[in-house]
Order: sequence, then C-alpha cells, then structure tokens
Amino acid sequence: MTALYLEDFEAGQTFGSGQVAVTEDDIIRFATRFDPQPFHLDPEAAQSTIFRGLAASGWHTAALTMRLLVGSEILPGNGIIGAGFDSLKWPRPVRPGDTLHVVSEVLEVRRSKSRPTQGMIKVCSRTLNQRDELVQESVGNLVVMARPSRTSR
Amino acid sequence: MTALYLEDFEAGQTFGSGQVAVTEDDIIRFATRFDPQPFHLDPEAAQSTIFRGLAASGWHTAALTMRLLVGSEILPGNGIIGAGFDSLKWPRPVRPGDTLHVVSEVLEVRRSKSRPTQGMIKVCSRTLNQRDELVQESVGNLVVMARPSRTSR
Repeated sequence: MTALYLEDFEAGQTFGSGQVAVTEDDIIRFATRFDPQPFHLDPEAAQSTIFRGLAASGWHTAALTMRLLVGSEILPGNGIIGAGFDSLKWPRPVRPGDTLHVVSEVLEVRRSKSRPTQGMIKVCSRTLNQRDELVQESVGNLVVMARPSRTSR
Repeated sequence: MTALYLEDFEAGQTFGSGQVAVTEDDIIRFATRFDPQPFHLDPEAAQSTIFRGLAASGWHTAALTMRLLVGSEILPGNGIIGAGFDSLKWPRPVRPGDTLHVVSEVLEVRRSKSRPTQGMIKVCSRTLNQRDELVQESVGNLVVMARPSRTSR
C-alpha cells in the first residue's frame, strides 16, 4: 500500500476495508471497561431494555470502525488523524456474531490557506454488518499532509 | 443516585462526573487493539509526528468519557443511550499521566411527537484534563423515557 498525500484525494473517491467479527465476549469486555450498562453487559438483562438483546456500545462500534480504517485503503502518509466529526450516528446496534466492514467516501478536499503544506479531507464512513445494514455513519475531517515538493515554501 | 426521567431535564442544567487517570500503558493497550498508529503506540516514534509525543487515540478519549458519564450524575432511568452526535472534536490530545473529568450541559429537551412516552435531550459534554484544558467536546442526543404516569397514553 502506498501512503497518500492531499493531492491524491478527490471528492467522490471511495475506499473499502477488511472485515472484523464481533463476539459476545468482545462486546462484554469493551462494555465492562468503558460503557457498563445492562444492555451492553448482560444478554439476559438486555432482553427487557430498548435494545431487546445484547448490543455493542456505540463507542465499541466506533473503535472497531477506526481499527478497520487504519488497515484500509484510505491511508494518508501522516496517518489517520481526525480533527473532529460533523456527525456520528448509530442507526442500529452491533450484535454478537456480526461481521463489520467500512466503506468510506471522500466528500471534500481543502488545502489549508494558512499552512499550505497540509489540508483537510472530509470523509463519510459507513460501517456495515454482514447483511450490509448500516450500523454507524460518520462524517469526519482528517488532517492530511500535502506531497513534499521543491517548489513548496 | 436517583434515575432521571425526561421531565427532570431542562436546558441549562449541568452535571459533573468523577475522574479517571490515564497511563501510558492504557493508551498503548487501547491503541494496539483499535487504533494502531505510531503516535498512539510508541513514545519514541511519536516524537517525530504531528503529536510530538505519545497521545491517546481520540476514540480512547471518547470511550473514557462514556465511562465517566455512566458513573456521573446525568443518569436517565433507561440508561445513557446516544442516538447520535451533532459534533465530536478533540481540540488537544490526552497524554500519559492525564486525569480526566467531564462536565455536561443540557442544551435542549424535546418530547417525541410520535412516541410521547419518550423524548430526546441534547447534551454538550466537555472532557477536561487536570489543567482544565479541553480534550474533547461533543454535542449528542440521548433517548430518555418520560416518567410513567396513569394519564400518559
């Protein structure tokens, strides 16, 4: 895989990812540490909640999405550095046994006016389960370095 | 702590949290699993990156913020269920040795028109380090149940 620079991105590009499987143990382990609520911890107790069964924490889904992005085709030379998100939502929960993958689309590429050696790309990342149902959608802004060149500065 | 219902929330309320300390080991362990990039994994390699030293993954900061919220004063009876975020940003990274806490402010309370037994509250949560510097700011929408009553429905 070749590291990408700002000049390599353009609106409309899409990037795929590998896959990750999520087990009941994974869900409970993450929740125990970061989101200890009954619907993320206990398959029995989860039945009588809004989720009607064990569901992964949204932050677990977000972390797994990041793991998939880091191993994916969208790989700026300076790494994946999120400056912030314009939106982040979880239309449906991740369940034990789900297998996730991510499809990212570049929405916008902007070179920084004050620091022309870098810029930002706005990316929509959709995390899908094995039935291609949407479990997370985010629109985020990544810091990306411009390609080093003799003429710059 | 008493569980809160939709009627207990109003715009302008603020809620505090406990604290959590973040070690170098914590940062590396989370990054190894979910965000394996040099600036989150290796204090040496991180020096020559945009972060100029080891920095926690933003998703680690987000997960720790959730952990603090679950133990905090803002506790709807049905749990903390995020429907989605309007924004999420990390103005500065979390470093080894930092201690974090969260201050949440209710921005808006809305009862659902289609399902009057529940509603949404919009909450801005600011995660601060031991110098009260902002490390994360999010604006999210939580699903909150209305207080059960004989007259409702």
